[in-house]
Amino acid sequence: MISEKKMREALQSYIDAFNRSDAEGVVGLFADDASVEDPVGRPAMTGKDKFGPFFKMAISTGATLELVAPIRASHGNAAAMAFDVKLTYQGAYQLIHVIDVMTFNDQGRITSMRAYWGPSDMEALGPPKK
Amino acid sequence: MISEKKMREALQSYIDAFNRSDAEGVVGLFADDASVEDPVGRPAMTGKDKFGPFFKMAISTGATLELVAPIRASHGNAAAMAFDVKLTYQGAYQLIHVIDVMTFNDQGRITSMRAYWGPSDMEALGPPKK
Repeated sequence: MISEKKMREALQSYIDAFNRSDAEGVVGLFADDASVEDPVGRPAMTGKDKFGPFFKMAISTGATLELVAPIRASHGNAAAMAFDVKLTYQGAYQLIHVIDVMTFNDQGRITSMRAYWGPSDMEALGPPKK
Repeated sequence: MISEKKMREALQSYIDAFNRSDAEGVVGLFADDASVEDPVGRPAMTGKDKFGPFFKMAISTGATLELVAPIRASHGNAAAMAFDVKLTYQGAYQLIHVIDVMTFNDQGRITSMRAYWGPSDMEALGPPKK
């Protein structure tokens, strides 16, 4: 089974790749047949042909991710992290408070991602600071 | 389906009941046939006769829970929160970094709880402050 250390590194790599707008880097962390449910409550995107374009779109918004607490591992093959998405949407600076839970295969690839956030986790912060 | 507001309130009630050592209050938030997997990777405790004693034991340690970020809701029937468990274990003050994910039924009771933390999420802080 994958180690806690490897899961932590993978989640940190996810954050880092996202923040340097490296969609290939993000998608490469996932197994080809992984499922991505973002947000939880919407249909999952299963397979790289589904979640690949999703991450490209998400990254193209210029959004960045900022951890708000240390990444959590587990006694199993799953890890979780709490972060804020920072983005500019329709001219307004916004935060979305999110918790991601990821599961892993033995090769260290992400097999599922579930992103917990809802409309009430979005916070409008007004126009971006100049 | 349960509202985001109700899920947030239930998770806050969980924290509050835990911190006033109210095991009945904690257990009462759960459906009778709920499952509790704490930590993720260990067998789930299914049914109040299994998870009831677990919460009594956990609360009897004197542990307290402190949110480290706002509770996250979702577009579905699930919500998540990142918190630290603070406890004194074998004379040493410890933190455990945890993320809980809970699902809910339409009556607003918790149907499952999964607690993401592993050995490497435990942090020894030395003897408690006098």
